[in-house]
Amino acid sequence: MSDAAETTEPDLAFDEQELLPAVAQDADTGEVLMLAYVTEEALEHTRETGLAHYYSRSRDELWKKGGSSGHTQAIEEVRVDCDGDAILYLVDQDGGACHTGYESCFYRTVDGDVVGERVFDPDEVYE
Amino acid sequence: MSDAAETTEPDLAFDEQELLPAVAQDADTGEVLMLAYVTEEALEHTRETGLAHYYSRSRDELWKKGGSSGHTQAIEEVRVDCDGDAILYLVDQDGGACHTGYESCFYRTVDGDVVGERVFDPDEVYE
Repeated sequence: MSDAAETTEPDLAFDEQELLPAVAQDADTGEVLMLAYVTEEALEHTRETGLAHYYSRSRDELWKKGGSSGHTQAIEEVRVDCDGDAILYLVDQDGGACHTGYESCFYRTVDGDVVGERVFDPDEVYE
Repeated sequence: MSDAAETTEPDLAFDEQELLPAVAQDADTGEVLMLAYVTEEALEHTRETGLAHYYSRSRDELWKKGGSSGHTQAIEEVRVDCDGDAILYLVDQDGGACHTGYESCFYRTVDGDVVGERVFDPDEVYE
């Protein structure tokens, strides 16, 4: 029997490379941390583990955020946009999101001004 | 002569379709409003006019956000990510960002729960 109050999982519109862009936002501060991509498998890992997973296009592999740096993203909520072709991860970011040491990958303006906060030294985190 | 204090515009890494994903975030509330795409031309229009422009992949044309709805996005700041392959628009959103009437296109969780706020009636805005 159908249940009118039942929620339906939104359809996801993966692109021809079977990817969706995923934005990570700090659930507390609202800071937009990064944009990466997910496959269906990466999204499943995210939902099952409660830790943000992506798909690395350059390394061509499933990627657990913080796997090498320890700077994981604990998932507070996963949202989908109206067309089902973008994902929003609301996360509790451990350390910083950016491999350069900044809290957010969006630490520069388009004019080149640095507006972000550096929260770790990448030389001490990545060996 | 070079000037050490001079800022350099970050290089942008447009993809093979000459696009970059662009995230729009409400500059006041921090709400992530939408994800769309920009061409170099769209980004130039954004910077020149102070109003968010995108490139519509479905309509294959430059797209001024709010051109038909009036729900424009006044630009507070444009940021670039570490790899130059994503853009963040910090905006003052007039009306709602989503064509469905919600403030944000990310108004649903991946489980289908509606968590966003509806701020206009699309039947009254789009004719």
